[in-house]
Amino acid sequence: MDFKYLNKIESPDDVKKLNTDELEILASEVREKLIETVSKNGGHLSSNLGVVELTIAMHKSFDSPKDSFIWDVGHQVYTHKLLTGRYNTFDTIRTAGGLSGFPNPSESEHDVFAAGHSGTSISSAYGLSVAKTLQRNKSYTVAVIGDGSFTGGLVYEALNNAGRADTNLIVILNDNEMSISPNVGAMAKYLAAIRTKPDYYDFKEKVGNFISNIPIVGNDATSRISKVKRKLKNSIYNSTFFEDMGFSYMGPINGHNINALCNAMESAKSFENPVIIHVLTKKGKGYDFAEINPSIFHGISKFDVNTGEATSSGENFSSVFGDKLCEIASKDNRVCAITAAMALGTGLKKFSEKYPARFFDVGIAEEHAVTFAGGISAGNMIPVFAVYSTFLQRTYDELVHDVAMQNQKVILAVDRAGFVGEDGRSHQGLLDVAFVRTIPNAYIYSPSSYEELRLTLDMAVESDGSIVSIRYPRGKEGYLPKKFIPKADDFSVFGKKTSPISIVTYGTEFSEAVKAMEELKKYDIDCKVVKLNRVWPLDKNAVLEAAKSDVILFAEEGIKSGGIGEVFATELLNLGFNGSYSHVAVDNTFVHHAPIQTLRTEFGLSYDELIKEIMRRV
Amino acid sequence: MDFKYLNKIESPDDVKKLNTDELEILASEVREKLIETVSKNGGHLSSNLGVVELTIAMHKSFDSPKDSFIWDVGHQVYTHKLLTGRYNTFDTIRTAGGLSGFPNPSESEHDVFAAGHSGTSISSAYGLSVAKTLQRNKSYTVAVIGDGSFTGGLVYEALNNAGRADTNLIVILNDNEMSISPNVGAMAKYLAAIRTKPDYYDFKEKVGNFISNIPIVGNDATSRISKVKRKLKNSIYNSTFFEDMGFSYMGPINGHNINALCNAMESAKSFENPVIIHVLTKKGKGYDFAEINPSIFHGISKFDVNTGEATSSGENFSSVFGDKLCEIASKDNRVCAITAAMALGTGLKKFSEKYPARFFDVGIAEEHAVTFAGGISAGNMIPVFAVYSTFLQRTYDELVHDVAMQNQKVILAVDRAGFVGEDGRSHQGLLDVAFVRTIPNAYIYSPSSYEELRLTLDMAVESDGSIVSIRYPRGKEGYLPKKFIPKADDFSVFGKKTSPISIVTYGTEFSEAVKAMEELKKYDIDCKVVKLNRVWPLDKNAVLEAAKSDVILFAEEGIKSGGIGEVFATELLNLGFNGSYSHVAVDNTFVHHAPIQTLRTEFGLSYDELIKEIMRRV
Repeated sequence: MDFKYLNKIESPDDVKKLNTDELEILASEVREKLIETVSKNGGHLSSNLGVVELTIAMHKSFDSPKDSFIWDVGHQVYTHKLLTGRYNTFDTIRTAGGLSGFPNPSESEHDVFAAGHSGTSISSAYGLSVAKTLQRNKSYTVAVIGDGSFTGGLVYEALNNAGRADTNLIVILNDNEMSISPNVGAMAKYLAAIRTKPDYYDFKEKVGNFISNIPIVGNDATSRISKVKRKLKNSIYNSTFFEDMGFSYMGPINGHNINALCNAMESAKSFENPVIIHVLTKKGKGYDFAEINPSIFHGISKFDVNTGEATSSGENFSSVFGDKLCEIASKDNRVCAITAAMALGTGLKKFSEKYPARFFDVGIAEEHAVTFAGGISAGNMIPVFAVYSTFLQRTYDELVHDVAMQNQKVILAVDRAGFVGEDGRSHQGLLDVAFVRTIPNAYIYSPSSYEELRLTLDMAVESDGSIVSIRYPRGKEGYLPKKFIPKADDFSVFGKKTSPISIVTYGTEFSEAVKAMEELKKYDIDCKVVKLNRVWPLDKNAVLEAAKSDVILFAEEGIKSGGIGEVFATELLNLGFNGSYSHVAVDNTFVHHAPIQTLRTEFGLSYDELIKEIMRRV
Repeated sequence: MDFKYLNKIESPDDVKKLNTDELEILASEVREKLIETVSKNGGHLSSNLGVVELTIAMHKSFDSPKDSFIWDVGHQVYTHKLLTGRYNTFDTIRTAGGLSGFPNPSESEHDVFAAGHSGTSISSAYGLSVAKTLQRNKSYTVAVIGDGSFTGGLVYEALNNAGRADTNLIVILNDNEMSISPNVGAMAKYLAAIRTKPDYYDFKEKVGNFISNIPIVGNDATSRISKVKRKLKNSIYNSTFFEDMGFSYMGPINGHNINALCNAMESAKSFENPVIIHVLTKKGKGYDFAEINPSIFHGISKFDVNTGEATSSGENFSSVFGDKLCEIASKDNRVCAITAAMALGTGLKKFSEKYPARFFDVGIAEEHAVTFAGGISAGNMIPVFAVYSTFLQRTYDELVHDVAMQNQKVILAVDRAGFVGEDGRSHQGLLDVAFVRTIPNAYIYSPSSYEELRLTLDMAVESDGSIVSIRYPRGKEGYLPKKFIPKADDFSVFGKKTSPISIVTYGTEFSEAVKAMEELKKYDIDCKVVKLNRVWPLDKNAVLEAAKSDVILFAEEGIKSGGIGEVFATELLNLGFNGSYSHVAVDNTFVHHAPIQTLRTEFGLSYDELIKEIMRRV
């Protein structure tokens, strides 16, 4: 593309050299680049289009990396990457070996903190600002956080702590009236209410402009202004929640007006206590299809720029789950569905439309979702919480304390379990089996096919168990053998029972195991596959079945430490097994972004890698 | 004791029969019983003395178990137990086989939800109230929650969700201006501010009285009142945070005035949306020593009623940790200490006094504590988060996402690891090893002695690791052998290296192992102890050392699934070990309250049980 400014931005210093008119042109160039790149590579579009001017204003007003930018969730950093020396590599974003779709300290000194999960930015920014203060470093720490994250409790814990602190902490509330889906809850209504009070905040903005036009901004000016503010506030307006929390509040500011943004940031610098700048932006700004449908363009696969249509779609594990749960709910009116702001991603959209009274979107508040589910269960209903594996990590204690210890029955529909591909480190679903099985009375199932997912859901609704976790991957069903009989519980065996080689596995890794088995057959090597349908508690008969072989390979698309492969080994030891055992899994590392099949190969889990491992053992 | 009313209360119905004067006498009888029992059994005193009138008023105004009471944290339910048919067994509280010190649904239909951790009550009460609404059950669900819990984010997530709901949810905010320690943060200051506006809330109380005196309270009255309220509010006062969250707000109410409390509860029933009743109580009310020193009497061992002095004290793991951290901080000014409202319990009191600038009490907000620590580490300081094992469960995702994935160095001082004794199920520290070791790049150490704790802290401060978890039990060092050489890292061997029997263990379970070894020697049975100092990653040389024996017993004071004993077995299998291996640990169950030594015996971990297990194997 032929750009006037964007291709010449090598660092934030080059942004600082441009005047407002030039920055406006830069903004439109950034948008063009974003739309083109995301249409090719997939990624987060709406959120990035919303913060183009905001990011430009930040690099104009602050001095990164001396000043530190911490991006909440981190899916909105594309413009930041383009302005911090990563224009030339931007085409590689989300591809194997290329730029990450999230902040990544190993990519650039301008990325202070990695992210991926919601609501962490104020806590970590406050921590960093405290460390700076203790070391007499007066630079600014700026957290950028969406209003969607304000449905999560971690943000509140951080505000409660950081308010009234004496650190140079600035929080930019990027208010686009959305999380991934439209926001829920009281805070969303509250923000909507303060959005409608422009005169007070306009006044503040004028004050901001006024301050930034005074050559030397001293403490006197600030405290005088704040007295005026307080007086006005007390006589006319209510105090805001943020002021109750001890922050100075500025806003709402038009988030697409670079000048207004720069003025607000300059005046925020002069406050002595932490400041919140409330910025109004439009998700998807500048791309019609995304403005109209920001949820769909939140995180998207490759799409056609001219039509806005995604190039892939169709049935997948999430849609199968959603359809099946609707069917179950039509017959059993005890069944409720809960999501933490992921109705679309988890396939619950249809349920929310058909059974609105039994559908609960709690916002990005996974901890509450689980404890709330415990309460629903105590009232003799059957809650199903659909959640991505990576976000389930948030709920460990609630699963222990508010479900398992209470003997409440809660079904977890754990989506995006296993490798997730392009979203990378923060989003991999590799820990859930290991941490859920440490919880007393928990059950874990891992269907390999759509039909097994359906059968397992039926069984879970009928069961007495406390936690029933049903985990399945992002995307589609993998390869299945010709004589595949779907089964929900216990285990299944494929191949000859007398085979001297067993591959033990679960979930869609089963497809790789079966391919390996079929490939080995061509070389007259006899191998069977033991597929765990119930992953935990471990079925001892499955261990006995595998122990008939001399060589056992446990292939686990998950973390090794605490994985099922370890307890399988323990049982083998108890049986006196003296053949060869190997446990192939992800060992003590975080997994970068790359296509899922690439990751399988890298971690020894693709069918050809399984074959190689077996050949080493026989 | 000679009571006029208390010993005759068999159910809440008997409370309802008493008039206000009689209830006042009942209250003083309850106090007498509480002080006497806790002085003998230990337990939570201050919090229970604070809610005597509140609990009586609840049983007078509501109809438990039809109406459901959910107690946050749950350490304040002693009066509730006395009034719900448990007077006769109350002397057994916190003793093995006796009443639990927390709500326990298996004890009584009046205990709806178990508890122990902070901030869960509104979420679970809201869930229960939703289930009731879906089933057209119009009974009330009442959550009782202290202001201390309002430093935690889960409460906020629940308020954000429950506000404006159409369920019969009533939240009683028991405001004693304390969590376990005095409260911290903006919310505490905010509550202090609304406490000082008695005229507005007095007006509300009068309105409440007025309503409750109208024979039939209809929707008309309510909505008229609420208009008056709104008008008054808008013209004179700011809206409260709770009203912003969509709750109706009543208060503050004198929490020691039974009449005022009953009136408030009656009027709360007439609102159509969720209500918060803000009640002011005094922690320790009615016992001078506890009123003056509520933190010390929060959770206490046996004490002398007349002097208020605890009968046991002295050096313990917590105090050793606190002293050592002060010593390290005096030499290294990068070291910071963080607590989640547990400065006293974790031994950080002295640190907070000596190094106030580097001490951070974040409130009951463990998630924030960890992410905040990640931020401090990003600023090149060394954060040490002292936390009980059971509460560390809250931080699983933050440990993964904001520390390990970021390669930040955070030291966890994990107190109350292992069995905790009388606090029971919700407080056992049995999961931390299993869940921490699923996190990439985490290190776990488990000192068996005070000196090892000191050495390990020194080593951790010098290390490069990301998460360093140092775990130690409640209370005192156990038995140590004569030739004990303290060691921080790797592993240690006690006894003859050539012994045909190995006991492998870590932490203070080591004392039991050594006693077993010494006892077996008397019968000429030769046994050695392999003590893991670094528990994770597992030292393979320790496995080799044990594998020299024919019989290996892995004794683990923790959960079996995901425990170190499993990965130890995996390594043995890889070595081709064909002797006898047994893994003694807590298997797939929650552990009730009882003295620690009783629990050791019950779970096969006392030295005599270890001996029995070995005798079965040789």
